Amino acid sequence: MSNASAPELNLLKARMKELSGLQAAAALMYWDQATYLPEGAAEARGEHLATLEKFAHQLSTAPEVGQWLESLSRQNLDEKSNDHFLVKIAREDFDRNSRLPAEFRAEQASHASRSYEAWKKAREANDFSIVSDHMKKTLDLSRKMAEYLREPHHKSMIDPLIEISDKGFNEANLRVLFGELRSRLLPLLEKISAAAPFDDACLREHFPEDKQLAFGENALKKIGYEFSRGRQDKTAHPFMIRFAHSDVRITTRVRENYFGEAFFSTIHEGGHALYELGIDPSLDGTPLAQGASTAVHESQSRLWENLVGRSLPFWEYFYPQLQSTFPNQLGKVSLAKFHKAINRVERSLIRTDADEVTYNLHVMIRFDLECDLLEGRLKIEDLPEAWNERYRSDLGLLPSKLSEGVLQDVHWFHGGIGGYFQGYTIGNVMSGQIYATALKAMPDLEDQFRRGDFATLREWLRTNLHQYGRKFDGPELMKKITGRELAAEDYLRYLETKYSKLLTLA
Amino acid sequence: MSNASAPELNLLKARMKELSGLQAAAALMYWDQATYLPEGAAEARGEHLATLEKFAHQLSTAPEVGQWLESLSRQNLDEKSNDHFLVKIAREDFDRNSRLPAEFRAEQASHASRSYEAWKKAREANDFSIVSDHMKKTLDLSRKMAEYLREPHHKSMIDPLIEISDKGFNEANLRVLFGELRSRLLPLLEKISAAAPFDDACLREHFPEDKQLAFGENALKKIGYEFSRGRQDKTAHPFMIRFAHSDVRITTRVRENYFGEAFFSTIHEGGHALYELGIDPSLDGTPLAQGASTAVHESQSRLWENLVGRSLPFWEYFYPQLQSTFPNQLGKVSLAKFHKAINRVERSLIRTDADEVTYNLHVMIRFDLECDLLEGRLKIEDLPEAWNERYRSDLGLLPSKLSEGVLQDVHWFHGGIGGYFQGYTIGNVMSGQIYATALKAMPDLEDQFRRGDFATLREWLRTNLHQYGRKFDGPELMKKITGRELAAEDYLRYLETKYSKLLTLA
Repeated sequence: MSNASAPELNLLKARMKELSGLQAAAALMYWDQATYLPEGAAEARGEHLATLEKFAHQLSTAPEVGQWLESLSRQNLDEKSNDHFLVKIAREDFDRNSRLPAEFRAEQASHASRSYEAWKKAREANDFSIVSDHMKKTLDLSRKMAEYLREPHHKSMIDPLIEISDKGFNEANLRVLFGELRSRLLPLLEKISAAAPFDDACLREHFPEDKQLAFGENALKKIGYEFSRGRQDKTAHPFMIRFAHSDVRITTRVRENYFGEAFFSTIHEGGHALYELGIDPSLDGTPLAQGASTAVHESQSRLWENLVGRSLPFWEYFYPQLQSTFPNQLGKVSLAKFHKAINRVERSLIRTDADEVTYNLHVMIRFDLECDLLEGRLKIEDLPEAWNERYRSDLGLLPSKLSEGVLQDVHWFHGGIGGYFQGYTIGNVMSGQIYATALKAMPDLEDQFRRGDFATLREWLRTNLHQYGRKFDGPELMKKITGRELAAEDYLRYLETKYSKLLTLA
Repeated sequence: MSNASAPELNLLKARMKELSGLQAAAALMYWDQATYLPEGAAEARGEHLATLEKFAHQLSTAPEVGQWLESLSRQNLDEKSNDHFLVKIAREDFDRNSRLPAEFRAEQASHASRSYEAWKKAREANDFSIVSDHMKKTLDLSRKMAEYLREPHHKSMIDPLIEISDKGFNEANLRVLFGELRSRLLPLLEKISAAAPFDDACLREHFPEDKQLAFGENALKKIGYEFSRGRQDKTAHPFMIRFAHSDVRITTRVRENYFGEAFFSTIHEGGHALYELGIDPSLDGTPLAQGASTAVHESQSRLWENLVGRSLPFWEYFYPQLQSTFPNQLGKVSLAKFHKAINRVERSLIRTDADEVTYNLHVMIRFDLECDLLEGRLKIEDLPEAWNERYRSDLGLLPSKLSEGVLQDVHWFHGGIGGYFQGYTIGNVMSGQIYATALKAMPDLEDQFRRGDFATLREWLRTNLHQYGRKFDGPELMKKITGRELAAEDYLRYLETKYSKLLTLA
């Protein structure tokens, strides 16, 4: 470690802090757009966002940043220090951002706002033609982005896009992982489908919105989400967003005729939020103060939503409270019946409503379609039919309207095509391996849940994962936390064991 | 008009557009801070805002901006063109901003947040000593600001500060205006006080919040506020804020035990919003896309709140609806009784609760104290006593605690001393003169109100005032709209006539 690094290091840190101010402003603009923006204001919002992103891009790619990083990379910073990681990650970002021209990014941003508004209209009108031109442009921009970022080790169009959010993964190794999952999920699905379906009528009573929200917020507090550093609002599509270590917000959506919607979305986004809230606060104002990758983030949301939130021990604690919140709806429903209901498996049309067994099949469909679109094997105008065809062949179902079909997810209409969906499935697989490790380290964990104590798990995750922010990538973190490379085994065994038990439950 | 202007003009416009993006982001951060920010997030928000404001200052005072303006000022732009006004106003802003050093503005900003926190504590503890050192520094900074901005035509310390928000006004001409108001408001107040006080018990029943908000939002729509280009949220202190032509939001606060709070605050902020919503959309993204001055803005909020919103014709339309919204509270209260209740006059301690007759007396007290402080005739340590003395002599009342006295308004503790309060009274006077002109032009206006039609007035205001944004200053606008210089006569005659009628009402 050399003292000579000080001037450039301080300049770099000051610049990163400025950038995080601009990014927080842009994030607030997104949050507001999803929660409270007047309908007529989308275009102006898009322009303002484009301005902010242009500044952020200028500041992050200015030549002096390259010089500071160049000089700092030649110095021997202590490899365990935050400064070392700051320089490493800042350099990766600098190299990537420098390859994307400012005008291109501004175009992406303003297109995203317009496309998002069109998506909402198209869903409402059940009319793909309202978004199809927007989507063509989105595909065009996504391809351009892949070209800008393409490096020799990338084999497919989608590879540079995957690398943005999930370093260490690519089309080839994902096809292997997805193949392995498919080869055991399909038989599991067959086995479950052969038995009597789990009856979830008890979740489909009338559950008033205010009580659902209050129950969800209470559970959030119990698992450790701090409302002094966040809040929950309602949006069409739930998400988590970070403005600062002291401000990590989530959103949810409520269906009064189905208990399974708001609660599990709340716990899911709460899991994302616990990750961000657990990042070492001294990393705030640097690019290290965020999750390691899409997949690692999803491992945390799915761990809390599914491995914890749909487990029997979790509900042994919460179910009596839920019954007294909804005595007419659930007073006479046994815990076993409720537990089966929230774990009902069913071939279905909507990814976000999918159970743990079929969820990854939805992801694989999107991933394959993205590869086909990016490689030019599929045209946007043929996408709705291709979508329907895959749902027919993989899940035996046909959407009756576009909002249950190709227009169900926001991703292709507010971001880009390619590089995001895979993270959901990698995250699921990670969640299984992380949770298995946690159970081995703390064999009484589920007894703690039965007593309403989630602090041990949360602190274990904070210590072993959350605190690091973006210092390590997904594969590095899996090695660090679990001592092994990522593999599907733990996750698949978790599912197979869970459903064997559920199938034998009365 | 010369074509040679094009390159600098385009550069200037591009810069102004960038600036308006940054300002919209900062405005959203303020709005969020007042509405939804988690309690723990204030410090991070402050840092992010400071970053944005630093960028805005850099961009607006960069040397190239001065060069563009210099060059554009030498060209003969068509004096009726938006470009002419853009250059004129941009130049005024540039000159002013360039005279305030960046360190001075940073000091002002950081002092403002410390002083604001101290103010909250001092109110709570009823202890002026907690803020007095902060206030000395505020006075010091306000004087420094006046020095930085002082020009030969300024006679008093307060003059350059007044000029920031209300160009065309100064201590000397305001003393004349205020003297004239005083000479007729005091006798009017005497006359009203000699009669039986208007009973407002009917406003002090229990009015459930949701119904109050719904009634207010319905009235907002009726006067022409478009929820597709705005929204209303709740805050501790109501305000209007503009992010873009398509996004002008207001806030309100509700007291369930007093109908007069939320409704008139809603109409007041709605009046501000109609002004901003009526600005020519082609001015968006330039410094012309805002109200002309504090006073002109206030003329619009007070016109809708008081001259329209507390008038009999307005309630001839709305009162039956209000009665059916609150049948138990108002079903048996006559329109005449209700109309007197909402126009109750009373010497009181709190400016923001004051009626139309006494309101300006509160403003004059503050204005005189500001002049005395800035000129060194009054010391901060003697301010609380001077405040009390003036309330005793002008209104015959003595505050029982500081939050009803010298600590009641935030202005001196979060902004500066001098240059803001006068706008409230100038705005009142303007509202009288503008409304008298509107009535002369459209003699059936109040019949329209009786039918629930407010479009003619709104469109007349848009055409004659709102559309211009900041192209003209307050005195220029008064000349343009009313054909005369600003004078107190119309406003005073409005008040005298209104209260003569009210006093003779059963």
